Amino acid sequence: MMKTACRFAGGLVFSACLPGLAAGQESPIVRDAEYYILEAQNGDKWVQEDQSIDVALAAFQEANEGKPPNIVYILIDDIGFGDLGSPTLNAVRGYATPAINEIADEGMRLARMYTEPSCTPTRVAFMTGRHPFRNGMGNTSVDISGFGLAGKEVTLAEVLSDVGYNTVHIGKWHMGDIKEAWPNWQGFDYAAFPIHQQGQLTIFHDDAADEEVSIGIGDNNYDRRYTIDGWLRTDASSMVVGVEGERDQTVMEVDMAPGERWTEAKYAAMNQRYQDQAMERLRELAAKDEPFFLNYWPLYPLTGPRTAYDEYTTPNGGTYVEKMKLVDQWIGEMMAEMDALGIAEETIVIVMGDNGHFTKYSPQSGYTPMIFRGGKGSTTEGGVRVDAFIRWPGMIEEDTIANDIFHVSDFFTTLARIGGATDGIPRDRVIDGVDQTSMLLNGDSHGRRDYVFLYNIDKLEAVVKEQYKLAIPGGNIDNAILADFYDLFRDPQEKYPVSTEIGAWGGAKFVRMIQRHLKRKAKYPDEGPALGMPYEGIDNLRPESQAAVEEFLFMVQTPEK
Amino acid sequence: MMKTACRFAGGLVFSACLPGLAAGQESPIVRDAEYYILEAQNGDKWVQEDQSIDVALAAFQEANEGKPPNIVYILIDDIGFGDLGSPTLNAVRGYATPAINEIADEGMRLARMYTEPSCTPTRVAFMTGRHPFRNGMGNTSVDISGFGLAGKEVTLAEVLSDVGYNTVHIGKWHMGDIKEAWPNWQGFDYAAFPIHQQGQLTIFHDDAADEEVSIGIGDNNYDRRYTIDGWLRTDASSMVVGVEGERDQTVMEVDMAPGERWTEAKYAAMNQRYQDQAMERLRELAAKDEPFFLNYWPLYPLTGPRTAYDEYTTPNGGTYVEKMKLVDQWIGEMMAEMDALGIAEETIVIVMGDNGHFTKYSPQSGYTPMIFRGGKGSTTEGGVRVDAFIRWPGMIEEDTIANDIFHVSDFFTTLARIGGATDGIPRDRVIDGVDQTSMLLNGDSHGRRDYVFLYNIDKLEAVVKEQYKLAIPGGNIDNAILADFYDLFRDPQEKYPVSTEIGAWGGAKFVRMIQRHLKRKAKYPDEGPALGMPYEGIDNLRPESQAAVEEFLFMVQTPEK
Repeated sequence: MMKTACRFAGGLVFSACLPGLAAGQESPIVRDAEYYILEAQNGDKWVQEDQSIDVALAAFQEANEGKPPNIVYILIDDIGFGDLGSPTLNAVRGYATPAINEIADEGMRLARMYTEPSCTPTRVAFMTGRHPFRNGMGNTSVDISGFGLAGKEVTLAEVLSDVGYNTVHIGKWHMGDIKEAWPNWQGFDYAAFPIHQQGQLTIFHDDAADEEVSIGIGDNNYDRRYTIDGWLRTDASSMVVGVEGERDQTVMEVDMAPGERWTEAKYAAMNQRYQDQAMERLRELAAKDEPFFLNYWPLYPLTGPRTAYDEYTTPNGGTYVEKMKLVDQWIGEMMAEMDALGIAEETIVIVMGDNGHFTKYSPQSGYTPMIFRGGKGSTTEGGVRVDAFIRWPGMIEEDTIANDIFHVSDFFTTLARIGGATDGIPRDRVIDGVDQTSMLLNGDSHGRRDYVFLYNIDKLEAVVKEQYKLAIPGGNIDNAILADFYDLFRDPQEKYPVSTEIGAWGGAKFVRMIQRHLKRKAKYPDEGPALGMPYEGIDNLRPESQAAVEEFLFMVQTPEK
Repeated sequence: MMKTACRFAGGLVFSACLPGLAAGQESPIVRDAEYYILEAQNGDKWVQEDQSIDVALAAFQEANEGKPPNIVYILIDDIGFGDLGSPTLNAVRGYATPAINEIADEGMRLARMYTEPSCTPTRVAFMTGRHPFRNGMGNTSVDISGFGLAGKEVTLAEVLSDVGYNTVHIGKWHMGDIKEAWPNWQGFDYAAFPIHQQGQLTIFHDDAADEEVSIGIGDNNYDRRYTIDGWLRTDASSMVVGVEGERDQTVMEVDMAPGERWTEAKYAAMNQRYQDQAMERLRELAAKDEPFFLNYWPLYPLTGPRTAYDEYTTPNGGTYVEKMKLVDQWIGEMMAEMDALGIAEETIVIVMGDNGHFTKYSPQSGYTPMIFRGGKGSTTEGGVRVDAFIRWPGMIEEDTIANDIFHVSDFFTTLARIGGATDGIPRDRVIDGVDQTSMLLNGDSHGRRDYVFLYNIDKLEAVVKEQYKLAIPGGNIDNAILADFYDLFRDPQEKYPVSTEIGAWGGAKFVRMIQRHLKRKAKYPDEGPALGMPYEGIDNLRPESQAAVEEFLFMVQTPEK
């Protein structure tokens, strides 16, 4: 990525770093087509708003020893809209998230936050400001796969780091098992994370097989008489689990010795370790002169089978619900620590979900879709609308709600601006993230997007503009003009197709919107993910992990012979 | 109903009126079977709690010139759970109810409020403390029908009136078109109400026919060639609309002259009139020495076709949503008036829905089921779970949520107790309403029911105990032991049947619960509604209304010849 000359240092303001004042960055950010339409209609107003925003951000920095705010970004896995932030809905569900509710009360609720429909693409969109169909990361890998987020993608960690932020990532990452995709190679000074995701860690291990949570795996859980080869049942314990390392350095796997079996207890220990590390790093980062970006992405609430030693602590008692309660408690401890460290006023805290419920384990998980229809993997609102709260004392008005559309990629652009790092945003590719600083600082109805394209992997399955949603079955966009519309305010569960006045034949204006979008894609074509050798760059790779890589290569290479 | 010797007078406390201290009332309230089980387990604790509650209520009265609190009960028609009281869910729906949200914030949210599945039975349950299957009022009449709530039923208005409350009813009543059923014959000193319901007033009139909201009615809206007689299409304008009158007196129909047609504009005027009357009566009642019970049951949000003069004032814009916004504004004016009158501290305010959404007009109404499944007419949670908020400054802790089960009939018993009128509760019939004062004053987990029987008209369709719900398809209770269970915390939409450990074969303990309930019904058999002559007791009955009654009688009597 490109470098700028500006870095923050304790007590000093480099004027070149002030938002909107940076020089030397001539070319504008490349956008998707729809943004240009909005900009043409509203650009003058936005320029005016931006001037006062620049003044406000500069005033914040001046009061903060010349530094932009710290950023703590907490991303919760697979939790549906309404399960966080609302005591009423907590009550419906039979549990409570008081710490997160308090963050919501002290800040802004982003009521129309859209993500991608599953973990990997949402996380990619946040880190790169780009819809993941653009860089081959719309798909999710659950085993050894040899692909990941390309090193040439520019992440929020990189652009913030480049203007002086210290950057740490703790917890889930899930953007591939190749080195260049990992957080410590993508702009984080330090990272502790599992290479894969929680499937390996919670439902593919022996404990889960014993409890029949997953079927037909493990040593003693199935009759092999019809098994001719073994690839269908990867031994999850042979896959690398958690690694830790410094920026642009090899990493070390932790808490697994050669031959050791992964267990639910080890998963619990891993979760606790990440919480402890997040707290420890928070203290370290707070002690430094530079602002920081702490990415904390817990693995809980996803969890494996209930074990006898688990206590019920909520009326709901679901496996995920109990762990969500624990994550909430942990977040509360983190907030208290920020108060104790005296950094609450200078720190933006964001808590949000990464996509809808993982309904495969409903209702035992304690979670089922409640407000919207569908869950993870779906482009109905239940898959892509999430709880999202942002607190920035004194800058974002407390106890407010903004009902403008916000896509998770907007945080890339918005936080880059707030961090004074807009210049670091690359100009050679489409950036989908919109600068929503005005919405955060000026409140409801000051958003800068009224649309979102909802992809499932690489298929466009729905388009939202204002409150209208065109749902395209199977992503067959050739038939979009005849597809059903929903009014999301009147019908949040998308059950009653409506007529609209939006063009003759209803869908015509949406079809033109899709055409503009596709034309833009033709100019800036989608690319695939980076491919590479799994697990390269791990110092202490276990022999069984090496063997698993070899099996993977065998599977890739054999059919090509 | 029986009388007691105690009445309140300004500034004087009659000790016989203090709750719990009343003498001369020897026989206990007759309960359903399940209550006795709970009482046997928890009675000692309840007695202790009741002693401190009596002290608290007495202290309130002493500070309030010897009077129990005023009661303002606002019942909103056909609005689903989550549409009131939550800014986040307001945002999902694209509108806002700030006045009601403020009441909720200043009081207690009753998160598990159950009603009956439609208007009439819910209103009967509130007024009588009894499930309406017991008195033939589970059904709903939409035209001239000659039945209604029996005069021998004892209403909350009667028991409160009997201890000195002034009582006024304004708005929807919908408990029958015979005199003895009307609010001014059921304990209200004054009542202004439509005889029937909003169907007549909003969708069966000429405007609605012209807009094709209702089909094949009116003078110019259908081809009569196959119509042999006319009874299928009652002329709604011939039915009595709004009446007003004093207690135990004949009433007068208002705002309709002989031959006049009912219109949507007249419906709007009726709504405004009820709001104006509610405000006027509030001021009158506040000026008197006695405490008061004001029952205000708006007709809105139900409304007819949008007319060109209706402005859009919300992003949702649905016909009901727009009117709900207006009702919220009206409630806000009422709350402000209470402040201005200086009675806010001495007045209990309750705002709640009467049953789930009327989905027949989704999504044009702006409302569709959102959190629970189903709507009005259904015993899934979407039909019978409603928003409910209660404010009593200084007595009910503000900004709290209680997640105990509460049935609308509980208000009868609870408000009678708080009003010092427990002695007036009849002892010769089953009272389903449970005294929930402890839940209101002591908060979450101090409720006194963990069950509710959910009837549809006269069929038991579901049983809730704790968080488990047995859903009995078609009310076929003989098959209840094999019916599906749902865990309502884990699965609010009742989509994933679960196994339970509650007895062998899952349903066994629920079946025994039903058996106990039925045994009790055998001892106290269900009765039918009161039957009578429609429209008797209206001084200025229009000729066309008299003709409509004669047609009704012709229809009843002809087949019997």
